[in-house]
Amino acid sequence: MEPNGFGLVWRGVSMSQPTYVVGHQQPDTDSITAAISYARLKQQQGRNAVAARAGEINPETAFVLDRWAREPPAHLESGRDKQLILVDHNEYSQAVEGANAATVTEVLDHHRIGDLTTSEPIHFYTEPVGSTATLVFEQYAAADVELDSQTAGLLLSGLLSDTVVCRSPTTTEKDRVAAEELAAIAGVEQEAYGKELLAEKSKLGEKSPREMVVADFKAFEFGDSHVGIGQIETVDPDQVLSQQAAVLAAMDELVEERGFDLLVLLVTDLLAEESTALLAGSKTDVVAAAFETTINDRTVSLSGVMSRKKQVVPPLEKALTAE
Amino acid sequence: MEPNGFGLVWRGVSMSQPTYVVGHQQPDTDSITAAISYARLKQQQGRNAVAARAGEINPETAFVLDRWAREPPAHLESGRDKQLILVDHNEYSQAVEGANAATVTEVLDHHRIGDLTTSEPIHFYTEPVGSTATLVFEQYAAADVELDSQTAGLLLSGLLSDTVVCRSPTTTEKDRVAAEELAAIAGVEQEAYGKELLAEKSKLGEKSPREMVVADFKAFEFGDSHVGIGQIETVDPDQVLSQQAAVLAAMDELVEERGFDLLVLLVTDLLAEESTALLAGSKTDVVAAAFETTINDRTVSLSGVMSRKKQVVPPLEKALTAE
Repeated sequence: MEPNGFGLVWRGVSMSQPTYVVGHQQPDTDSITAAISYARLKQQQGRNAVAARAGEINPETAFVLDRWAREPPAHLESGRDKQLILVDHNEYSQAVEGANAATVTEVLDHHRIGDLTTSEPIHFYTEPVGSTATLVFEQYAAADVELDSQTAGLLLSGLLSDTVVCRSPTTTEKDRVAAEELAAIAGVEQEAYGKELLAEKSKLGEKSPREMVVADFKAFEFGDSHVGIGQIETVDPDQVLSQQAAVLAAMDELVEERGFDLLVLLVTDLLAEESTALLAGSKTDVVAAAFETTINDRTVSLSGVMSRKKQVVPPLEKALTAE
Repeated sequence: MEPNGFGLVWRGVSMSQPTYVVGHQQPDTDSITAAISYARLKQQQGRNAVAARAGEINPETAFVLDRWAREPPAHLESGRDKQLILVDHNEYSQAVEGANAATVTEVLDHHRIGDLTTSEPIHFYTEPVGSTATLVFEQYAAADVELDSQTAGLLLSGLLSDTVVCRSPTTTEKDRVAAEELAAIAGVEQEAYGKELLAEKSKLGEKSPREMVVADFKAFEFGDSHVGIGQIETVDPDQVLSQQAAVLAAMDELVEERGFDLLVLLVTDLLAEESTALLAGSKTDVVAAAFETTINDRTVSLSGVMSRKKQVVPPLEKALTAE
């Protein structure tokens, strides 16, 4: 560390300004718990780190925060001119508003490599594992910082939520090892706690069709196409599919408002391990081509498909950039 | 691993096709030794990995390969349709021809985050340390694979070359720890061996002005500007500066041929720890603005500047994207 005109500076990072640890927009449980836990690790290492969120807390995450007695992180309205550590994402289109005018000092993620660029070398770490929680767990181990039971409970929640209790095809051996250790530290039984979580995730309850579409939603730029992909993971897909007309109308509205060329809503049946995709936008034909299937009544059946990241993004990107 | 129509596949990587471990164009010692050493680690982990290079071996690297009795890696003419692990770079403009039509399965680097994108999550690991060798050294430790003395000698060479024997401002504590351990395994004295290396690096000898400019050269896209930055690290800068007119003529030629808006040649005095920059192209004024200095006779003096990556790229990028 050395003083300069801007105060204490450590590897280009101002130490007097806080660094916000923040996940993606429409945050899921992995984004929120990774932000809280990774900020805590940085604090223990003497950094001025603050956990933040880029959007509203969903009901599953609210349950998790309550279960492990933690407050939700502060809502970061804009990343402009701030120092950011991005967790669980690395694309500007998914990041907090103004992130492209922020100083990103670090990335910890398990998604595809997106459009982030920096002018200086940073710590950028992505790995194809099932959850960001798994990577945060490994960072604690590498730094030899002990995990308290609350933090372990948060990370376990992020891991089990993102991997559908280690059933998603994104699950790796590292995730299983981390889940086992985290469950032991948190003092819960993994399968039983996982089922509690799944039940919370499936409580679509009084959500409006619009809320169903945007609850877990990500935007992508594939070639020239602006694509949105939402996902509902549930043990009772009929809760959504019985309102198909209303949900499609909400999707059409969203296409109109945000100029999407293609909007996909994956309704993923966690027990049957398959998805139904509802489609909107001018480029829905691409979905038929990408999955070599046919569209019936603006839906396609995707047998075996559970992961947006691993099983839906790659074929759609390929089909849209090959145009 | 599971069989599919394309043979054995491991996390989206075909196991029957080789994966080429390759550094940047105009490879330096760190790029070549990282490629050889990291390919060896992957081989020991059962991967079909092949060390490769994206250009000609420079005299310093030839000395290193000879000293540690290793053959130069095979020249990879094109990355098109191949599986690549990129070491010591992560920007298409610096990568082997056709890299943007390759499947990049992994990145290990210590530079700024560039324009690489992928459709699937990969292992992408950059850290602001002094050399890629340091990161390869850590990967061996993490995988618990023993380093033989030859491989340790290669990695030590890459580390000492990139950090100017741990004198560059890019040098971190991790680099110092790695250098100490590598020197012990290789059985050499770090300072003495480092000075041998510096002497080789400084042997500009019979190089033509053109060869001086392109020997260690990187291209960048900053905003709309196409920028080339070459660097000569030497203990005897007069070998270059005494031929200033001829070197500037060679630079003008290169600007013409490759359409650079700005071409900078850093002549770095390793002992005085400063650089003289020679300038060509239509946007040389930006250099004066970026470094708050004045241009005399197409040169600027940059006191304390030794690192292209850390001290030259960031201010130039800032000045050119603020235009």
